[in-house]
Amino acid sequence: MSGDARNPTLASTRSLIVPNDDCESAVHRGALSWITSANGVRSDFPLANLPFCVFALPSDSGKRKIGVGIGRFVLDLGAVAEAGLLGELASDVSAGCRAQELNRLFGMGRETVRELRSALTMLLAQDSPLRERERDSVEKLLYAQKDVVFELPFVVGDYTDFLTSLNHATNVGRLYRPDNPVLPNFSSLPVAYHGRASSLIPSGVDFIRPQGQYRQGHGGAVTFGPTCKLDLEVEIGLFIGRGNALGTTIPIEEADAHVAGLCLLNDWSARDIQAWESQPLGPFLGKSFATSVGSWVVTLDALEPYRTAPAARQSEADPLLPYLHDALDQSVGAFEIHLDTWLLTGAMREAGAEPTLISSAEFSRDCYWTFAQMIAHHTVNGCNLRCGDLLGSGTISGPYAGSEGSLLELTKGGSAPLTVGHGESRTFLQDGDEITITAYCARADDPAVPRIGFGECRARVVEAATASSHSNVN
Amino acid sequence: MSGDARNPTLASTRSLIVPNDDCESAVHRGALSWITSANGVRSDFPLANLPFCVFALPSDSGKRKIGVGIGRFVLDLGAVAEAGLLGELASDVSAGCRAQELNRLFGMGRETVRELRSALTMLLAQDSPLRERERDSVEKLLYAQKDVVFELPFVVGDYTDFLTSLNHATNVGRLYRPDNPVLPNFSSLPVAYHGRASSLIPSGVDFIRPQGQYRQGHGGAVTFGPTCKLDLEVEIGLFIGRGNALGTTIPIEEADAHVAGLCLLNDWSARDIQAWESQPLGPFLGKSFATSVGSWVVTLDALEPYRTAPAARQSEADPLLPYLHDALDQSVGAFEIHLDTWLLTGAMREAGAEPTLISSAEFSRDCYWTFAQMIAHHTVNGCNLRCGDLLGSGTISGPYAGSEGSLLELTKGGSAPLTVGHGESRTFLQDGDEITITAYCARADDPAVPRIGFGECRARVVEAATASSHSNVN
Repeated sequence: MSGDARNPTLASTRSLIVPNDDCESAVHRGALSWITSANGVRSDFPLANLPFCVFALPSDSGKRKIGVGIGRFVLDLGAVAEAGLLGELASDVSAGCRAQELNRLFGMGRETVRELRSALTMLLAQDSPLRERERDSVEKLLYAQKDVVFELPFVVGDYTDFLTSLNHATNVGRLYRPDNPVLPNFSSLPVAYHGRASSLIPSGVDFIRPQGQYRQGHGGAVTFGPTCKLDLEVEIGLFIGRGNALGTTIPIEEADAHVAGLCLLNDWSARDIQAWESQPLGPFLGKSFATSVGSWVVTLDALEPYRTAPAARQSEADPLLPYLHDALDQSVGAFEIHLDTWLLTGAMREAGAEPTLISSAEFSRDCYWTFAQMIAHHTVNGCNLRCGDLLGSGTISGPYAGSEGSLLELTKGGSAPLTVGHGESRTFLQDGDEITITAYCARADDPAVPRIGFGECRARVVEAATASSHSNVN
Repeated sequence: MSGDARNPTLASTRSLIVPNDDCESAVHRGALSWITSANGVRSDFPLANLPFCVFALPSDSGKRKIGVGIGRFVLDLGAVAEAGLLGELASDVSAGCRAQELNRLFGMGRETVRELRSALTMLLAQDSPLRERERDSVEKLLYAQKDVVFELPFVVGDYTDFLTSLNHATNVGRLYRPDNPVLPNFSSLPVAYHGRASSLIPSGVDFIRPQGQYRQGHGGAVTFGPTCKLDLEVEIGLFIGRGNALGTTIPIEEADAHVAGLCLLNDWSARDIQAWESQPLGPFLGKSFATSVGSWVVTLDALEPYRTAPAARQSEADPLLPYLHDALDQSVGAFEIHLDTWLLTGAMREAGAEPTLISSAEFSRDCYWTFAQMIAHHTVNGCNLRCGDLLGSGTISGPYAGSEGSLLELTKGGSAPLTVGHGESRTFLQDGDEITITAYCARADDPAVPRIGFGECRARVVEAATASSHSNVN
């Protein structure tokens, strides 16, 4: 028995599948969706985006589902697959859609996800020949984003954080080494360290101000208590799709094929704890208490219109080693993404005030290294990346005042407080403060290309736990 | 229907269960096993040890099983549970025994594992009233250790490596900072960094010499190629049993309850890559190509007779912060373990020579911090540890020549080559070199307490991969 005979929907959607390139081209030129909220000029989630997420319904005992963002909604992808609305999907792709995290689906490789997005585009496009009854079926599987709980999109094996913004390296280095702010390896390799995977938290989950030991002032006594210098770090994250085997490399030209997509990231940092512990082995407890991960995974296919040339090399006298040089295409791995960071204090919340914009930066313009270079470097020693591994760009800071991606930089180490809300000031974060990072891509040179967005990455600081608040879990 | 009626074996083994304390006491005093190879004075695996492992049979398509070491054998714990030989085990414990990794079993907590070891002791003790037919049943589930393939014992979420040996910190620090070898935070907190979990490999699996960028000499040109300074790091690892929730702490007095057991660890290091990349964020590609994990997880219950006082504090003027001070028992977390490290070069292997002993050290005597302190520190900021997480002690180096746990130290940064085998010399590792770490605990003051061992942690260096050897996996 053929699929057509069993389910008339299969036949109609299958007939919609057109070559991927045509499809991508149409949506990149602003094809509309029959879901009208997707077509607003300020929507993060037009038909051209279709980012992936994992979500749960509060009423459904926390059971996680895979979703795709469209307008104000999230489409339940598992239910779409179960309803046979995606045409002749292979059974393993269907199983990937019905999983509780994105690893299985994106582990199948970029082509599979591309075909899936094409099929979804056909389901959601305004000019698709979908029948009324089929639109009804799809519509029943939409949930308002405001009504769902977002979870981590992938099970993350390892989390690596890079240092790719020269402005950030310079700003922070200047505070600690005024004569020698940027170390000599910065322009030779994308510096990175291993982060903590267990304390990654989804956007919307608050975290407790960490305690730890630190020195009060340079050379001061070592004390213990809640951090006095709680900071944020504005970053773009990258999830690995297909991995590589231990002992093999991912050449820079092949890096894109291993990318699931990009997300927002906030690598919360306790500057006083970090400063005291970090020598000689790098950051540890100053970071490992929480890292917030944005809800949405935006695919490279959606980001295609926003590819851009990587930042210019610092110096001709500092040539790239061949494994970091992309001979095929200088623009691989660089994307133009505008980032905004917003602060809402407890007092502002009580007064019903809107968040204050504290920083705006540009992802690729303000980065010295591309993600393709980071992936090539990460694996050049044979290190294996696994599906779901998370790579952070490191703090993204621009060259201008107000473009720095951390309070450490925005307030010059705490010496120049920010004025926020109605007469409040901030050096570092106070209990009750909430930080939200948003981001979007837009083409000023071509308004026909729709803006796409990353949703938000948000968390609030909760007062430090008392010593007796420990509990055990597995 | 009672278990007794269903299966006569259940009745007989259940009747053997005696209070745990008596049982532990008997085996700690050298109770014998009917498996005679367990009773030899040089056996790593007497009845008193019963360490856990995960193994596969080459003939069985790599299906992983949980095992327990006894004499020259590994006992198939899943099959033992399935055969009903463990008495009235709860069904979830039985499921834990039949899993493919130790996470499920050890996630149930230390008491559960203790009861399981008691039941196994009853099955394997010489003086147990086991009937001939029951011994036959057990005997059929034994495999010679030499015939099985050992796998990683746990699925590791995060791997953290500490810096606990003052001798190591001093020896290495002296090479880079002659005037200031040990940094001021060393005696205030157990310094640590996040390691790479994906490249953990089981003992017996070889690894490829990593490539990377490094400078030739201080301030020399940056070049790319296979590391010239491949080194080992002799460590003890600790697997977490029950974890803690994000935002909570594990107080030092409760640390032991969260420990699954200890293992051998070799944190391979490319010193030239590490030296060039490590500032300001710590080690990355210089370590992430491979870390070898010993096959056996030795429980704290087995290690009980070898508890010892932690090393004396460096200075009275440098008091411990309260969260690192164990008010209940100063000896918590410190164990006396003797470590030996052996080198077999390719030439020695061809000549049929035995490995050369290149280093011997004592785990606790040569460590400044205990594992209980490391766990309390790791979680003091609210960082969550998960079942299966791996903590490394860091390189264990003693105070004497020949007790250093790395070639960097043994050869004084490569300036004093070791003589090995028949006239060969080594500064760092050559292709074909194989390093084996072994370890045991013995009580010179009380010969009635049987020696227990850790088996081995072994790997060989394979020539660097050529650039074209990359491949993709999920």
